[in-house]
Amino acid sequence: MDDLDPVLAHIEAQRDRHLDRLLDYLRHPSISAHDIGIREVAGLLFEMLRDMGLAAETIETAGHPMVLGRRADAPGAPTVLLYGHYDVQPPDPLDAWISPPFEPTLRDGRIFARGAGDNKGQHFAQLLAIESHLAVHGRLPCNVIVLLEGEEEIGSPRIAAFVRDHADRLRADLVITADGPLHPSGRPIVTFGVRGMVGFDLVVRTGTRDAHSGNHGGTMPNALWTLVHLLATMKTPEGRITIDGLHDPIVPPGNAERAAADALPVDIPAYLAEMGLARLDAPTERPFHDRLMFHPTLTINGLHGGYDGPGSKTVLPCAALAKCDIRLVPDMTPDQALDCVRAHVARHAPEVEVIARGGMLPSRTPIGSRFTPAIIDAVRTARGIEPYLYPSAGGSLPDYVFTRTLGLPAFSIPYANADEANHAPNENLEIALFHAGIRTGAALLHRLGRMRAPGDAAAPSA
Amino acid sequence: MDDLDPVLAHIEAQRDRHLDRLLDYLRHPSISAHDIGIREVAGLLFEMLRDMGLAAETIETAGHPMVLGRRADAPGAPTVLLYGHYDVQPPDPLDAWISPPFEPTLRDGRIFARGAGDNKGQHFAQLLAIESHLAVHGRLPCNVIVLLEGEEEIGSPRIAAFVRDHADRLRADLVITADGPLHPSGRPIVTFGVRGMVGFDLVVRTGTRDAHSGNHGGTMPNALWTLVHLLATMKTPEGRITIDGLHDPIVPPGNAERAAADALPVDIPAYLAEMGLARLDAPTERPFHDRLMFHPTLTINGLHGGYDGPGSKTVLPCAALAKCDIRLVPDMTPDQALDCVRAHVARHAPEVEVIARGGMLPSRTPIGSRFTPAIIDAVRTARGIEPYLYPSAGGSLPDYVFTRTLGLPAFSIPYANADEANHAPNENLEIALFHAGIRTGAALLHRLGRMRAPGDAAAPSA
Repeated sequence: MDDLDPVLAHIEAQRDRHLDRLLDYLRHPSISAHDIGIREVAGLLFEMLRDMGLAAETIETAGHPMVLGRRADAPGAPTVLLYGHYDVQPPDPLDAWISPPFEPTLRDGRIFARGAGDNKGQHFAQLLAIESHLAVHGRLPCNVIVLLEGEEEIGSPRIAAFVRDHADRLRADLVITADGPLHPSGRPIVTFGVRGMVGFDLVVRTGTRDAHSGNHGGTMPNALWTLVHLLATMKTPEGRITIDGLHDPIVPPGNAERAAADALPVDIPAYLAEMGLARLDAPTERPFHDRLMFHPTLTINGLHGGYDGPGSKTVLPCAALAKCDIRLVPDMTPDQALDCVRAHVARHAPEVEVIARGGMLPSRTPIGSRFTPAIIDAVRTARGIEPYLYPSAGGSLPDYVFTRTLGLPAFSIPYANADEANHAPNENLEIALFHAGIRTGAALLHRLGRMRAPGDAAAPSA
Repeated sequence: MDDLDPVLAHIEAQRDRHLDRLLDYLRHPSISAHDIGIREVAGLLFEMLRDMGLAAETIETAGHPMVLGRRADAPGAPTVLLYGHYDVQPPDPLDAWISPPFEPTLRDGRIFARGAGDNKGQHFAQLLAIESHLAVHGRLPCNVIVLLEGEEEIGSPRIAAFVRDHADRLRADLVITADGPLHPSGRPIVTFGVRGMVGFDLVVRTGTRDAHSGNHGGTMPNALWTLVHLLATMKTPEGRITIDGLHDPIVPPGNAERAAADALPVDIPAYLAEMGLARLDAPTERPFHDRLMFHPTLTINGLHGGYDGPGSKTVLPCAALAKCDIRLVPDMTPDQALDCVRAHVARHAPEVEVIARGGMLPSRTPIGSRFTPAIIDAVRTARGIEPYLYPSAGGSLPDYVFTRTLGLPAFSIPYANADEANHAPNENLEIALFHAGIRTGAALLHRLGRMRAPGDAAAPSA
């Protein structure tokens, strides 16, 4: 077994060069929602994987291409599938950015750019970990498959079919994703699941044209009122989602997950201060982590109708639109949730159209997985501190394709600061955490190399 | 008394020239909400009044200037104050216009342009009526004051103080406004009142930045949900406004007004078809005209928050805004209505800010006014048909400054087609109705010239 120490020394020696390369990567927009820059960035990744010594390929889908890399230097050792996504969220509102989203800028020890944390900075650290092992030892301690997706920020509409159709290319023993934030204290975390999600638009058109609110106020229905009254039937002011049947499939957390959630620290005043909030969202009685791990949400992402200019305009709008998402916990599914929404809308406001915007199943790996000790050890080695264990993240990643379609345990080991502002203006990544991410990735490959793949009696013991 | 017939003949001979002059007028934008073109158009009107032989003046206010003209050729005859407004609504959404809003275009016997109906085409017809009398007879049959305002479309914030401060300049016996639409059948109408209105914004900010709907969904309050739930407490899905105290000052219509409203024809299927509606607005049981004359409304003019781009964005918005107006019936006032809104918001969502956007008192002149027969006769002369009598219009005009501040009876005699699409894309005015408006104005001046001013025993009897 090759030593880890020289790899960590190499990573230390390459600090400036690694940072420069990340900044260069972030300069390339790859906005999946607007189809901007996607193929150029996929091409850059293909070249990087090839140049570092992996068998690289770009695989077309009906949408944006998948970029794959693989290398099998360690017979008998486990094969880890490293997943990331190279697409980013749209950067608007642009005028809220202090520095332009695609001109990465260093301030206060952080890299400010769209994608710095979500997810370019994080999967780039994983790739540099592989590259560093190869640079020092000429081989990898375990077998590696890299899978980089280009549609995660629009709901991963192609990943399920891709993983199903290419299961042979993705044969592995576990999946590791580096995405999302660390604990607000900066302490590393390991996350064993994600919420799913389903997005939908509610579209209302009550007439053929906007009208004068005086000449038609009282006779012409208002599309915004229709939408407001419909939405008000879907969730109470006290925060209870009131869509019939939505909660039916929910499985309460198991004992290990319940205990892990209860063991997590929380500093609510710090959270409120960081986000500028007066209070937590309703319902008020739920434990903080329960809100993000064990309950679904119904979020209005955007609601727009009628006049949006300066001053006033006494118009009665004939059209309105709400964009919404529901976060799903096991065993809710996007189809089931959307069916409930459709039935609810048909009952309360049949004139409103429901447009599905894609979804993602939730995923949860048992905390008792046999890979958990190796992962914890790798984090400890790279960061010198014990990670917190999260039964689930609040956000969504397409981990279900690994846990359900491939039947593999899947873990997230995020590297980004808690205030990375992903999906928001001034997204950023602490420079030190980028380097720590490379070290963690390197330690993880090393530690997995000391395990044997399931069913391989000849592999060295952990 | 000078004859009316030669004046009507002159108007007929000038058809093409009058239309060309209106098109030229409509080419000049005068958007009060955006302060575009206001002073240029005020200057054009000043020159027109001066050139036609009126004593013209432009009077500054704290906002946009008032343009006045006057001529007193008929001692003992009444003095009529002709009011109009030279500002127009913003033209957005621009891409919904078939021809550009400030490039007047003739199609299907109509003039398409912003302001064609509301209100440039209508007060321009009044001015041409004056001009035609002067061109034929060199004098006017009654005394005339013209008052043209430049802030009607932003709620006439300066008209009340202006009328109060310049009551001496505005000493008259009655007020005539030409604004709003005819009956959908094309039959002329005389309107004796207007609803008032009060505009306000509801502004919510729940945090300092938008956030990821997964990482923060369940913990961070959503500004759009706050706004939706607040609005849902202000009006039921059945159309009942539920703002405490709002209805308290309402005075039910008198017998003459009640009878006039009941006598008005209504073709609901035609209205639904014209506006592309599936049904009338709730509440369902109210008579059609009652909805527009005798009840207040609460209209959401615009509601905006969160993502507004293509595709989806899983964002949790920290800010949202609703622009609203309430139409007022006698004896509601903007202050009273706004107080009720503020108290309601303070009770249901104290974190929401209420920003007042100006208001206007309602106005109602008794149908039994001594000028009513002369007005009906003038319409009959010009159009060959009896007008319908409307106790109130649904829309708002600052008539209260005449009926309350000056204590005068005020009447509206609109000239525009019912489908003028005012405040909306493709605003238009039928060319024939523009010319009919000039004739009506001319007949009205003539008919008023046969009355005596109140208290003037020497004036000829009607």
